[in-house]
Amino acid sequence: MNVLVLGAGQLARMMSLAGAPLNISISAYDVNTDSLVHPLTQQNLGTGLANAIAAADIITAEFEHIPLAILEQCQKSGKFFPGETAIKAGGDRRLEKQLLDSANVGSAAYHIVNSEADFNQAISKLGLPLVFKSALAGYDGKGQWRLKQAEDTAALWQKISAFLAADPQQSIVAEQFIPFQREVSLIGVRRANGDIKVYPLTENHHVNGVLSVSLAVAGNEQLQQQACQMFTALANKLDYVGVLSIEFFDLNGKLLVNEIAPRVHNSGHWTQQGADICQFEQHLRAVCNLPLGSTALIRPSLMVNILGEDAVPESILTIPGLHLHWYGKSKRPGRKMGHINLSAPNNAELKARFTQLINLLPEAIFPELQQMVNRIS
Amino acid sequence: MNVLVLGAGQLARMMSLAGAPLNISISAYDVNTDSLVHPLTQQNLGTGLANAIAAADIITAEFEHIPLAILEQCQKSGKFFPGETAIKAGGDRRLEKQLLDSANVGSAAYHIVNSEADFNQAISKLGLPLVFKSALAGYDGKGQWRLKQAEDTAALWQKISAFLAADPQQSIVAEQFIPFQREVSLIGVRRANGDIKVYPLTENHHVNGVLSVSLAVAGNEQLQQQACQMFTALANKLDYVGVLSIEFFDLNGKLLVNEIAPRVHNSGHWTQQGADICQFEQHLRAVCNLPLGSTALIRPSLMVNILGEDAVPESILTIPGLHLHWYGKSKRPGRKMGHINLSAPNNAELKARFTQLINLLPEAIFPELQQMVNRIS
Repeated sequence: MNVLVLGAGQLARMMSLAGAPLNISISAYDVNTDSLVHPLTQQNLGTGLANAIAAADIITAEFEHIPLAILEQCQKSGKFFPGETAIKAGGDRRLEKQLLDSANVGSAAYHIVNSEADFNQAISKLGLPLVFKSALAGYDGKGQWRLKQAEDTAALWQKISAFLAADPQQSIVAEQFIPFQREVSLIGVRRANGDIKVYPLTENHHVNGVLSVSLAVAGNEQLQQQACQMFTALANKLDYVGVLSIEFFDLNGKLLVNEIAPRVHNSGHWTQQGADICQFEQHLRAVCNLPLGSTALIRPSLMVNILGEDAVPESILTIPGLHLHWYGKSKRPGRKMGHINLSAPNNAELKARFTQLINLLPEAIFPELQQMVNRIS
Repeated sequence: MNVLVLGAGQLARMMSLAGAPLNISISAYDVNTDSLVHPLTQQNLGTGLANAIAAADIITAEFEHIPLAILEQCQKSGKFFPGETAIKAGGDRRLEKQLLDSANVGSAAYHIVNSEADFNQAISKLGLPLVFKSALAGYDGKGQWRLKQAEDTAALWQKISAFLAADPQQSIVAEQFIPFQREVSLIGVRRANGDIKVYPLTENHHVNGVLSVSLAVAGNEQLQQQACQMFTALANKLDYVGVLSIEFFDLNGKLLVNEIAPRVHNSGHWTQQGADICQFEQHLRAVCNLPLGSTALIRPSLMVNILGEDAVPESILTIPGLHLHWYGKSKRPGRKMGHINLSAPNNAELKARFTQLINLLPEAIFPELQQMVNRIS
């Protein structure tokens, strides 16, 4: 089975590693260079989307910010999962909000801002504080502004109007600020026949808007059910095929969707060691129309992102239950270079191993890990 | 880190999958065609051993039946682990027996047979029944003969003398037949600094001389210690670096070495899901001089080989804790095409899942699985 992945980053790479044992071969299409590469070896496999589509049995994507012409071309092939509508909803906050509304899934109250009148209406309708998010191409906290107090309104409008003027395709979604206690995410998978499986909720900690740690331990059953219901509503609404990821705000036990990602997700990397079948294999199974595997937590696990560094102390490899995953990328400040998965037979042992890990990692490069230790009960 | 593997089969392939997350790239040298390939993509990476050696940081092997000239050339590079001596001992039963004797590790009493006089001496010295094994190139039960009763002596000598005459390099090791209750194997790893770690003993079931099922459950502590001591004696004697595999006969709780393999081993494939760090990653860590990882059993597991078939019922993918591993090979009768790993939180659940698996697999292709169910206590 040949699967073409739009995007040639670490998610395609990890799909390739997960697919090989199933005799599923991955080729990755770099939308910027119009070239096809093997995601593991970077071997050039040709150029041109039309050729790539013709050679593929199945097409999928590792990111959602894909030019519309490419999405349309893939959609026409009839081989594209989760398909154009889902990818677009993940890449455009306006469509995402429409989808959430139509599936009756709760998220922050919002208002679309394309003009100064819209901007003022957002403030009067939703009140302060507000978060303004770019509709397109925003990720890892980029393209976001907060408005906490009325006196900053004029200055912020200057920024936002400049931003909108720079790109006629852009738009802003103003959202009521949610005073959430924590951010959690749910990774789930749906097959064309309607089968759905979801992993346990993961608690996420961000530093400067970028995911730092994801923690997967046996959690609150009520919260898990809430998340699963919202997942099911969205996945069914989209007739979704593949892995779908949902980030939630946890507001005193009530979940509100922050955003969705129509793909495997950084907060699901722990599934490589903590779950029976990892998110990468589940996604491939779903898009290749194979039976889904178990999503059960097999042991409490967490993941730590490695950002901007191409080395970690070798000594961490001695920690039981630790797996190091490099992405084979060249070093660049802030770049996602790899991650560390850590698992243990129980929460107490996970806490002990995490503490051992924190003591071996340089704090300047891995900040704020300590506060996540206390989240393991 | 670039690791050159002598041999381009499934073991090199699984090393490649295990190495990628550590940014270890594997190229595989096919000793028959003198060509270098990527073990996953089969992309041709050049020809000529000298070039391959020059481009490698480290050299290792996935099998032991390697022409001596190649072993010597690799050894001279100073990059070859576990190295010429260990590989030769794995590929020649005479050297293997010398090694076992010199490390004071128990195995069946034996006699080297190169002539009719040797043959008769073996019978008078060791008694019947006897097993005659080719010194070179014997594996999966090939090149072995049994002598149970004296009246078959002349006929067997006809066969063996013809076998010896056909290849002047060959020799025969006659061994006392061990009336063992079961065959177990130990996979362990040693680093250059002397660090040693071993996995739990695995119980193996063969059909027609070929491994069919390996079972890894928490076992007898006394037996585990015995195996570990024998492993340590052998690995230290060889100043071994990498994964070393030992097959034992279990004779009423006393272990005797059947044979050793200076490499990762089919009976260790379960470590991909049942252990913290699998044998392929451990081997790479050792030869690349990285810290060894935990070899603890994280859950009871077993492996079933897929021989001569390139498809299994899709429905087995629904069994929790089941992983399918194909090797990307073309179909040939009896060929090792892939394996199934099965894990569970406890023995009872493993038994239930194994029974579920057996009911879904065609018995003609997967014979004698049922009797292994009863080995799970």
